[in-house]
Amino acid sequence: MSNDRFTANRTFLKDSIRLEIDFSRTDQNQRLPAPPLQKPCPPDATRIDVPDGATALARLSCLSMGEAILRRESVRKYSSDVLTLEELAALLWATQGVRTVLSPECALRVVPSAGSRHAFETYLAVDRVEGLTPGIYRYLPFDGQLAQLASDPQIGRSAASSCLNQGFVANAAVTFFWTAVPARMEWRYGLAAHKVIALDAGHVCQNLYLACVSLGAGTCAIAAYDQHACDQLLGVDGEEEFTIYIAPVGKRKQADQ
Amino acid sequence: MSNDRFTANRTFLKDSIRLEIDFSRTDQNQRLPAPPLQKPCPPDATRIDVPDGATALARLSCLSMGEAILRRESVRKYSSDVLTLEELAALLWATQGVRTVLSPECALRVVPSAGSRHAFETYLAVDRVEGLTPGIYRYLPFDGQLAQLASDPQIGRSAASSCLNQGFVANAAVTFFWTAVPARMEWRYGLAAHKVIALDAGHVCQNLYLACVSLGAGTCAIAAYDQHACDQLLGVDGEEEFTIYIAPVGKRKQADQ
Repeated sequence: MSNDRFTANRTFLKDSIRLEIDFSRTDQNQRLPAPPLQKPCPPDATRIDVPDGATALARLSCLSMGEAILRRESVRKYSSDVLTLEELAALLWATQGVRTVLSPECALRVVPSAGSRHAFETYLAVDRVEGLTPGIYRYLPFDGQLAQLASDPQIGRSAASSCLNQGFVANAAVTFFWTAVPARMEWRYGLAAHKVIALDAGHVCQNLYLACVSLGAGTCAIAAYDQHACDQLLGVDGEEEFTIYIAPVGKRKQADQ
Repeated sequence: MSNDRFTANRTFLKDSIRLEIDFSRTDQNQRLPAPPLQKPCPPDATRIDVPDGATALARLSCLSMGEAILRRESVRKYSSDVLTLEELAALLWATQGVRTVLSPECALRVVPSAGSRHAFETYLAVDRVEGLTPGIYRYLPFDGQLAQLASDPQIGRSAASSCLNQGFVANAAVTFFWTAVPARMEWRYGLAAHKVIALDAGHVCQNLYLACVSLGAGTCAIAAYDQHACDQLLGVDGEEEFTIYIAPVGKRKQADQ
């Protein structure tokens, strides 16, 4: 590990790059079309309606915001309870819900994102969610639906294996896998796109933590994972779309609350 | 802008680097001492006690967590109202409050952080906070205090100027400047430290957004700034500590709520 690489990595966290960029040359300012705000759904995928997320979140999250922040902790032990589809809808909405579509190229979501670019897709490794066959799903926030991508009766083990065998992943009711679609952010920011994608992923995950608290559930974010194995599990190419952050979710054990 | 640089930046967001790292060689596993969990306070700085943040947050944040998430939006227009010291204490606690000190090398905070490393310091450009002279302060979360670092009657303008003259910064009651102290995270994770620092900064900022909502305040995160000017404003060296994310905060205008 050379010092040069540490310097390069540290530089990535700064905003020094902004001075280098000629923003008149970005795709946006060249009037090139923006990538779609939501990855198209495979035509053969089964679509499942999820309950309205805003309503679900309002109904289920009655804990005060201050209490939720104060009680937030990393939870790695989950009960064998099933999540309801309403609970899942609340978590999906809290993390990536679409509030307002301003134009075909811009929508506001529940979380903040640099330039409202929202460069993520949300995949779910579902083990125990009411009404859902275990397997891989993708959230379609503009449609209020899930796309069923693959069945896998051993999804807990598959997810844990892609997370370097961190055992607690196997016991989650559902594991969120967020992928980055960097072109969405690069369209507007060029080489200044990538740091803000990472910042945005943190926004999303923090809301998951907080929404979990008020559902009697818990999560523990995972940034140490097998990149290739995760991308393969989700069926993404690892170049134009790749796993960026992961969060297993489950109901808390009674004695643990 | 070459394709190579895009590839390198995208790679930064992946976890491919993990396979390259010999974690037995990290400073932690070499039994080198960890950097301090809080940057030492300059001996000549005036220290100001802040009210207990947990109590302040619990008292002021009665809005439900679901409502706070649903109402969160980017706010760039602020009233001329002053923030109380209790309100500021709630915001500081929500973003970087220390919950439990486990050892001299590890403490749990309100927000999650990879390996509980919490590689940030919080600086405040204070314009209108009850009882505080306008200027630059640093939060000392382990002491429940602020260190007064510099007076500046024109702090709003100074902060805006360091943020590439984004005008709304000048009208904030207080602007949060988070710096990264990368050595804290590198001690444990070596070259895998930097992506997670950015993710962590997102966690912190999301809590600021939510805590603001329930105080009738608002914020709008800033990732586009003049790196050198910000580091200079805060008095940090730009190498071992540098600005990573910024968030101006103010009370909302009445008609805007």
